[in-house]
Amino acid sequence: MDKPEILNHVRVVLSHTTHPGNIGAAARAMKTMGLRDLYLINPRHFPDRQADAMAAGAVDVLRDAVVCSSLDEALQGVTLVAGMSARVRDISQEVFAPREAMPLLVQQAMRQPVALLFGTEMSGLTNQELARCQFMVRIPANPSYTSLNLAAAVQLIGYELRLASGQEECALPEVCPASAEQVERFFRHMEDTLTEIGFLRAQQSTKLMQKLRRLYARARLEQEEINILRGILTVTTDFNARHGVIESNEMILKK
Amino acid sequence: MDKPEILNHVRVVLSHTTHPGNIGAAARAMKTMGLRDLYLINPRHFPDRQADAMAAGAVDVLRDAVVCSSLDEALQGVTLVAGMSARVRDISQEVFAPREAMPLLVQQAMRQPVALLFGTEMSGLTNQELARCQFMVRIPANPSYTSLNLAAAVQLIGYELRLASGQEECALPEVCPASAEQVERFFRHMEDTLTEIGFLRAQQSTKLMQKLRRLYARARLEQEEINILRGILTVTTDFNARHGVIESNEMILKK
Repeated sequence: MDKPEILNHVRVVLSHTTHPGNIGAAARAMKTMGLRDLYLINPRHFPDRQADAMAAGAVDVLRDAVVCSSLDEALQGVTLVAGMSARVRDISQEVFAPREAMPLLVQQAMRQPVALLFGTEMSGLTNQELARCQFMVRIPANPSYTSLNLAAAVQLIGYELRLASGQEECALPEVCPASAEQVERFFRHMEDTLTEIGFLRAQQSTKLMQKLRRLYARARLEQEEINILRGILTVTTDFNARHGVIESNEMILKK
Repeated sequence: MDKPEILNHVRVVLSHTTHPGNIGAAARAMKTMGLRDLYLINPRHFPDRQADAMAAGAVDVLRDAVVCSSLDEALQGVTLVAGMSARVRDISQEVFAPREAMPLLVQQAMRQPVALLFGTEMSGLTNQELARCQFMVRIPANPSYTSLNLAAAVQLIGYELRLASGQEECALPEVCPASAEQVERFFRHMEDTLTEIGFLRAQQSTKLMQKLRRLYARARLEQEEINILRGILTVTTDFNARHGVIESNEMILKK
């Protein structure tokens, strides 16, 4: 695939951006690095004059931006989601520096659309958004002041992406990554089944599902693997359903 | 010299900046990357409320900024000057990419103060300014739109400088990888369970187990994750065993 085409497979998703000037500045940053697919989830003000002003010569990126009302809509068709984070969190998802992460993204973007997910200016990504990311990207920064402006972060990530996209192609095994929707359906199926067999119980279920999501996110599931895993879940459920026995079960984590 | 001291030897010089917001945003970009020496040559408006607003938590960098009336004044005591340029010029100075140039700057900054010289937003460096630069730095950009915002350029150069100065030890999340034996025990447990519930059948079992092994190998399982996964397997088996029903089951991979 041509280098410009790789960058056309990379979607920049800005979630709930507060300041329209940041959207414009992000569009400008994107265009300078050869990115043009901008998705906006519920921006507070858009379209907006200040966004246009800050976009300078990149108003075309703003004009073509896709405004979405949900995360699902913004990630439709995407096979890999990288989340931007300034903070260390409890649930420690895999975290890469931009220079490590962008080659991974480029590899995937050769075949399928990928997304870079940026949270709000003040609080970053929500837990729901984090759960959809296969890995996190953290920009190295001054530990006593890590607060990069949103558009500055887009600029930096776009820069690393541009450099990574020009690198030598390494020979990779053929893979058929699952789409974001397929992965979500798998997680819902798993949650239902684990609840049914009595493994998940109200109190711990959120935390356990987060841990399982993190595990499978790291693996970056392929379509065939999702088929196998859902096949296992289906056999488990069918088996139980046929015998009409659904009962509570001790959770056995200590074994 | 300490690593932080290297960055203290790097002066960011903004010449004839038009928009005070850009000065503030540049100060913020500097501070996030650990830079704090800001010199302003004849800024159009400074100090300025918009500069303060855009600086966010980096108003201290603005407060300590040195306002100069000439290039000589701004470069006093400096032994190496790197000029930022978006354009190819007649004057054929040596031009480096940021990733090549910043290690050169860091080497020098270990001994003596150095400067990064940024021209005006509209026209970049003057010929007089160019003449004072030992070399130029050009940020790789989309050939059809190279117009980075001034503060975005400061952010990018500061980032490369920070990486070149060796500031970053990569802070990785704490992980407790499982041992090879733990992983093997998990696979045996899984194989037994999948056979018991009728998912694995003689013919395909080797191939399916290979695929599952490949998936979990990619994820590089942690100890806690193995505990969770084996917990799920145990619940499944206990559940079935209690009901005394182990029978052959159709494998459902197509669903």
